[in-house]
Amino acid sequence: MKATVIVELKPSVLDPQGKAIQHSLSTLGFEGVEDVRAGKLFRITLADRGQPREEIERQLRQMCERLLANTVIEKFSYSIDD
Amino acid sequence: MKATVIVELKPSVLDPQGKAIQHSLSTLGFEGVEDVRAGKLFRITLADRGQPREEIERQLRQMCERLLANTVIEKFSYSIDD
Repeated sequence: MKATVIVELKPSVLDPQGKAIQHSLSTLGFEGVEDVRAGKLFRITLADRGQPREEIERQLRQMCERLLANTVIEKFSYSIDD
Repeated sequence: MKATVIVELKPSVLDPQGKAIQHSLSTLGFEGVEDVRAGKLFRITLADRGQPREEIERQLRQMCERLLANTVIEKFSYSIDD
């Protein structure tokens, strides 16, 4: 079973990496790039033991809260692919 | 207009960051994590000048090829959110 987790800075948090990318794109000649925000994505393969979907979602949420995201400055979302 | 770009290592390329995360999750007590692959995500806001969709896709593809992805070891995908 595969899941995708996305971790992004909260909208109120400055993103210097995104700003640097925006600037580089502009230097390369790409016009009209108004904003870039950089985030992280994790593709997680979980053993399929017939757990209910809620149990998998609970586990993913815990993974985000305990390891993958810094919830002070980051928000996370996840989806189960199959 | 907003677009999301995802850049991931090609499946054949080793991902030490993903392996480290997998190991940490296991250490934290999460069972059944068979694989983790780490990737990058970019939320790009583009000025809306009434360009045709193909033009926006062409621009996003060029951004990936010229800056966001190292196409030797990474693959990319993009979606236009609205």
